[in-house]
Amino acid sequence: MPLYIKSVENLINEFRKLPAIGPKSARRIVYYLLKQPPGFIDDFARTLVEMKEKVRFCSLCRNLAEEDICHICRDASRDQEKICIVEEVGDLIIIEKTGRYQGLYHVLGGLLSPIDNIGPHELRIPGLVERVRGKGVKEVIIALNPTVEGESTAMYIKKILAPLGVKSTMLASGLPVGGDLEYADEITIGRALADRREI
Amino acid sequence: MPLYIKSVENLINEFRKLPAIGPKSARRIVYYLLKQPPGFIDDFARTLVEMKEKVRFCSLCRNLAEEDICHICRDASRDQEKICIVEEVGDLIIIEKTGRYQGLYHVLGGLLSPIDNIGPHELRIPGLVERVRGKGVKEVIIALNPTVEGESTAMYIKKILAPLGVKSTMLASGLPVGGDLEYADEITIGRALADRREI
Repeated sequence: MPLYIKSVENLINEFRKLPAIGPKSARRIVYYLLKQPPGFIDDFARTLVEMKEKVRFCSLCRNLAEEDICHICRDASRDQEKICIVEEVGDLIIIEKTGRYQGLYHVLGGLLSPIDNIGPHELRIPGLVERVRGKGVKEVIIALNPTVEGESTAMYIKKILAPLGVKSTMLASGLPVGGDLEYADEITIGRALADRREI
Repeated sequence: MPLYIKSVENLINEFRKLPAIGPKSARRIVYYLLKQPPGFIDDFARTLVEMKEKVRFCSLCRNLAEEDICHICRDASRDQEKICIVEEVGDLIIIEKTGRYQGLYHVLGGLLSPIDNIGPHELRIPGLVERVRGKGVKEVIIALNPTVEGESTAMYIKKILAPLGVKSTMLASGLPVGGDLEYADEITIGRALADRREI
């Protein structure tokens, strides 16, 4: 005899597949759902399926879109000479939120990782080369996380774009604004020292 | 121009309604879903709707069930003389997991709270009285959380069942097994002293 109800267990298992949801949260969420008014779960399921049906990836930059081309690539008022390269759509959103960037994007969808069989083709780097070659792109801003994988991916991109005469830049490393020297790690301080700027 | 995609935002908002999911987790979950193979979201949505359609509350004890009566109430081998009163289905599952209880249950679905307009009828206490009166119930084990609301609900239940000649008991309070006097609060230690047992 099962301790729990099959259809409840099934749903708990679905929630457990999601990131940041452990067995206790999954159970708690499902009990919460069971206590909601009848329309709640229907709305939830419909919204899920609706997103799946409507959302695709922009065929130029791989940003999320509800049409073939995303709203950023479609926007002629944006600076067509700059492409900012990010790992994930989430990073694109973070940069958009700063309101300090008006160029285009290219979402890699990951970082180079030979051990996981993730090479340039998995990251749509050929598509990037195509974009840089085709249009009047002058600068590629590589906004990858300052990790080993991020930096080696950045170096690869810089190397492959070099023959096209495009400038490759990276986000500055250094102390976070409002941060405290005391709490920064040595590598960050070292980088901040090396990249010091005249004031 | 929207910063995000409407159907993605809608789904993020659905996830934010769930307990223990904040704005960042909701976003992370939705990006995760976007990267899954096509069948993943369909399975998720189907499991949601399936649970909603199959699960109901046991008409006797309010445990979760896929039929009118839950598997515990249907089980003739269980001790029909004991009813354990719990606040939520989750508490029932916790007690079942101990493997130390073989009686029946009654799930209140909450605790008495006049300020929130939760009275005996909202908690199906009349149904409990019915069950105790009808069958040969000898003992009611009140397994509510040892909080003010839990204890006042327990006292109310004890009072209302008293005329029926049924014994009301509560879970013992005291030091957790494997616990340490040093880390226990004064009220728990006081209760453990008052309820001390001969060894």
